[in-house]
Amino acid sequence: MPSLIDLSLADWRSFDASSAAMLEQMCPRITRLHLNKSSGCCWESSYSKVCLTASALAAGCPVIVKAHSSHLGTNELMAGAIRKAAQATGMPDGVFSFLIGEGGTLGQALAKHPAVKAIGFTGSFRAGMALYKTATHDREQPIPVYAEMSSINPVLIFPDVINKDADKIAAQLAGSITLGVGQFCTNPGLLFVIDGNNTAVFIDKLATALNAIPAAAMLNQGICKSYYSGRDKIGQEKGVQTILLGDDSSSSYKGSVALYQVKATDFINNPELQNEMFGPASLVVTCKDLSELHTAVDALHGQLTGTAFGTSDDLREYQDVIGKMTEKVGRLIYNSVPTGVEVCHAMVHGGPFPATTDGRATSVGTEAIRRFVRPVCFQDCPDEFLPDALKDSNPLGIMRKVDGVYIAAKK
Amino acid sequence: MPSLIDLSLADWRSFDASSAAMLEQMCPRITRLHLNKSSGCCWESSYSKVCLTASALAAGCPVIVKAHSSHLGTNELMAGAIRKAAQATGMPDGVFSFLIGEGGTLGQALAKHPAVKAIGFTGSFRAGMALYKTATHDREQPIPVYAEMSSINPVLIFPDVINKDADKIAAQLAGSITLGVGQFCTNPGLLFVIDGNNTAVFIDKLATALNAIPAAAMLNQGICKSYYSGRDKIGQEKGVQTILLGDDSSSSYKGSVALYQVKATDFINNPELQNEMFGPASLVVTCKDLSELHTAVDALHGQLTGTAFGTSDDLREYQDVIGKMTEKVGRLIYNSVPTGVEVCHAMVHGGPFPATTDGRATSVGTEAIRRFVRPVCFQDCPDEFLPDALKDSNPLGIMRKVDGVYIAAKK
Repeated sequence: MPSLIDLSLADWRSFDASSAAMLEQMCPRITRLHLNKSSGCCWESSYSKVCLTASALAAGCPVIVKAHSSHLGTNELMAGAIRKAAQATGMPDGVFSFLIGEGGTLGQALAKHPAVKAIGFTGSFRAGMALYKTATHDREQPIPVYAEMSSINPVLIFPDVINKDADKIAAQLAGSITLGVGQFCTNPGLLFVIDGNNTAVFIDKLATALNAIPAAAMLNQGICKSYYSGRDKIGQEKGVQTILLGDDSSSSYKGSVALYQVKATDFINNPELQNEMFGPASLVVTCKDLSELHTAVDALHGQLTGTAFGTSDDLREYQDVIGKMTEKVGRLIYNSVPTGVEVCHAMVHGGPFPATTDGRATSVGTEAIRRFVRPVCFQDCPDEFLPDALKDSNPLGIMRKVDGVYIAAKK
Repeated sequence: MPSLIDLSLADWRSFDASSAAMLEQMCPRITRLHLNKSSGCCWESSYSKVCLTASALAAGCPVIVKAHSSHLGTNELMAGAIRKAAQATGMPDGVFSFLIGEGGTLGQALAKHPAVKAIGFTGSFRAGMALYKTATHDREQPIPVYAEMSSINPVLIFPDVINKDADKIAAQLAGSITLGVGQFCTNPGLLFVIDGNNTAVFIDKLATALNAIPAAAMLNQGICKSYYSGRDKIGQEKGVQTILLGDDSSSSYKGSVALYQVKATDFINNPELQNEMFGPASLVVTCKDLSELHTAVDALHGQLTGTAFGTSDDLREYQDVIGKMTEKVGRLIYNSVPTGVEVCHAMVHGGPFPATTDGRATSVGTEAIRRFVRPVCFQDCPDEFLPDALKDSNPLGIMRKVDGVYIAAKK
């Protein structure tokens, strides 16, 4: 059946860049794609916006971006670059729109519009779920929602590496916890240790490293206020001990560091301790043994990332609990920090609910295009009417799967 | 970054069969996959059940099947084959369960259960949407629903082929409309023609061919009753002309043929005419010109399939409207009937809402496994802890995408 060829992977190599700078290079290559009638519509941080726009455009979908009110200037710069690229490559007018307006009202209006066929979003759990409800229930035709909402990015730090490398890990984690004043979605907000001789020393080193990092301006007043009230709530939960608490600098919109500690038994029974603080703070969970660590990992909600710090011996000994954590995350990191998301083919920036509303997707990397495509099968289609990606002569020169076998383009 | 390799396609060649007979052959190959804690849960026709079970098991998910009350014997035979295969290949007890119970009650209880992580379904729009609502709203963690609900599978029959091949097409369509007493989800329930000299002759030939096919027993009493009331409603809609109406044989649970005709102007303004009759009946829509056909195709809801009958000249002349129909369907067929779904790599048995609740998926073919997997990225993972599919030495001998390039296994 030669006319039945897998479309689903066709033309994907058109999409291999997703930063503002690379978008202009990319656009000449994506204009050859069919422009769909459907629209991708997004609310995103500036960085995510570019990834989302790149993957939606690469899939042939016009994009409507709702700007975040906290960085209108950055948004305008990025929108300008995208518009320039669209014009330079002869894309149709209206392929990219950029709207400014009150978040909830404008967002809900867009989410309800019948021409909008998919939604990408980064933000709070509350706002993400409001969009999800509208998209799945308040429309005649439900549409996919890719909302990245909340993640506290658990880190497992095993005993042998604490004995051997406490200084280095404390420094790495302090840097990661405070990167971007703790406002990275991959910020390590939960640190698990198995109680041992050097646990207290390690926590002390981490507190010292954190304490050296000054408070800095957060994205906006609301986020800053919410950070301080969030960390205060964590500090008041049952069994939580405050290890380090920077001064409240909310009057100057600055976020200061904080470090808390709690026993696993208290953590396991209290889902409030999994609320994201969204700022330069983290919670250390001490487990009395491996069995308690297993139970704590069982209790974890879905996460964007999970990290394991360990020596070779640690990693061998604790592979079961690392495997258990893998079922809760979109990305598993060994001996490195979760902040920093490479735009590459293997990236998965996503994860099970409530990290996102759709754990099947990534919002960064080449696979991000899957959010805005759907498969179509062409059966017994004469070669001349097939999309170029499927023609027998393979005019695009791409790798294709034919009758289940991947076949490279002839040179 | 050698430890970052795309997992999303790994191990998929483990899954290349999805019929009951082939499942036993397949199981030895899928047991090497990691068995997830999550469950795939399905309500399906017997045929779809096997496809669903095969793809969910291949993805490493235990499966709970809710039997359809109308074919408990067939279900039991299939469940027995699957259980036998699971035992023979040493799969864990409980990897496959088969439940009998009242549809709505049992279905809703399963859909709400926190251990159930995905739902596959084939059936009515009402039942599918009830599951969708539960899965997306009445659970703490929303889960994907792959519900195949309703499709009337439009067929475009162009003027030149009507002039040249009316007999053949009438015979093909009559066979397809009555296949399985019209109870195929891909049954062609909507036939578009552009009014011309031979339109009336063609419709007459189709009616004659249909009229030769005797009434036959339908799946159950409810479906049979619903077929007659559904076709009666269509027959009474504004502008609908009854061309052929077989006797009501509902007393013996038999479905008889019916053929209706309506002008495009009436079709375009009346969504009731897109209600599925689910039986051996079809509606011919006559368009006065190509522009009216465009408007009618614009008005179409999402469909599993769309079909174009045309000579080479037709297909060249009408490629625009065929392209428009492609945006509404999961599978586009040229010069053949939509009934009959090959289990193969390129199959897409799915389509935009309301044909399904998730147009990104297919429920038949190798790509069906995507419904039950999610991507995970392993960053800086020591080779010994990577899944076999990702180890540098490629012990499974599979094709892999490494840093964006597909690389075949060394022989």
